[in-house]
Amino acid sequence: MLLRGCVQVYTGDGKGKTTAAVGLSVRAVGAGLRVFFAQFIKTRESSEFAALASLGGHFCLRRFGRGFIRGTPSQDDIMAAQAGLLEAKGAMLSNSYDIVVLDEINVAVSLGLLLSEEIVQLIKDRPECVELILTGRGAPEDIIAAADLVTELREIKHYYHKGIKAREGIEY
Amino acid sequence: MLLRGCVQVYTGDGKGKTTAAVGLSVRAVGAGLRVFFAQFIKTRESSEFAALASLGGHFCLRRFGRGFIRGTPSQDDIMAAQAGLLEAKGAMLSNSYDIVVLDEINVAVSLGLLLSEEIVQLIKDRPECVELILTGRGAPEDIIAAADLVTELREIKHYYHKGIKAREGIEY
Repeated sequence: MLLRGCVQVYTGDGKGKTTAAVGLSVRAVGAGLRVFFAQFIKTRESSEFAALASLGGHFCLRRFGRGFIRGTPSQDDIMAAQAGLLEAKGAMLSNSYDIVVLDEINVAVSLGLLLSEEIVQLIKDRPECVELILTGRGAPEDIIAAADLVTELREIKHYYHKGIKAREGIEY
Repeated sequence: MLLRGCVQVYTGDGKGKTTAAVGLSVRAVGAGLRVFFAQFIKTRESSEFAALASLGGHFCLRRFGRGFIRGTPSQDDIMAAQAGLLEAKGAMLSNSYDIVVLDEINVAVSLGLLLSEEIVQLIKDRPECVELILTGRGAPEDIIAAADLVTELREIKHYYHKGIKAREGIEY
């Protein structure tokens, strides 16, 4: 159990935000902590989650996004994100998890699926013993202000620009 | 197996560099790839490695550092890092691994344990099918130039400044 949880944000345009949250999760499960990992936006199957679930610890993955959204989000997209936020809040308050990850939540805000005020309220409602991890590019100022730790991942160089496509085991 | 490996660098003063490499490793092992994870510098036991080893995939952790170094490195420190570099190069060329992580290698260079030219040579010797991941703050310019992907993690805010100490399951 965590005695003192914090709020961590991983933002910026560089590769590694979700990956850092996955790394934190494996470390936490390895230390006997319980992790609730909520994915907003992304829905592609990704190799790490089967591995994390197989660790035999307490790891729960939930996916609320309806895939990458082009153009204006539909009412269904908004409802999926809102349902996700509610469930994540429930998990945070349930006393069943030490760490709650809101993966790509910043993107859900940028897309207008959620309001940053709703996320700030969730941060305010956080029990002291829960660690909150928020990821996604474009973290709004009020979320950054409410966080204890903020890391910006900056893309200095990316092989996408060389035409290398996403590879199984590396990007997903 | 990877058809086309790349060279990724995670640098900067922000939290999440080693964590991103751990996240990449769990994803890779989850996809059936084989990972050699070499730790330079750090030696503290960290919760994620027992978890990674328990995945049942092909994950090999090797530690070459002799702990955090204060002042001028000793001859023993230098020999430990040199032995590590040799072993990592052997792993890279062995056809037994798809991913080779050189964790905190940039710090080993900054401390004068290794020369950046040695790392650049290792990058040049990389077989096409191997992914190399290099971490550590202060990546030298010639390593950045030789890499395919570089992410700089910038510290925007850190709870260390609030007096929060490293916590098991979160920082280690």
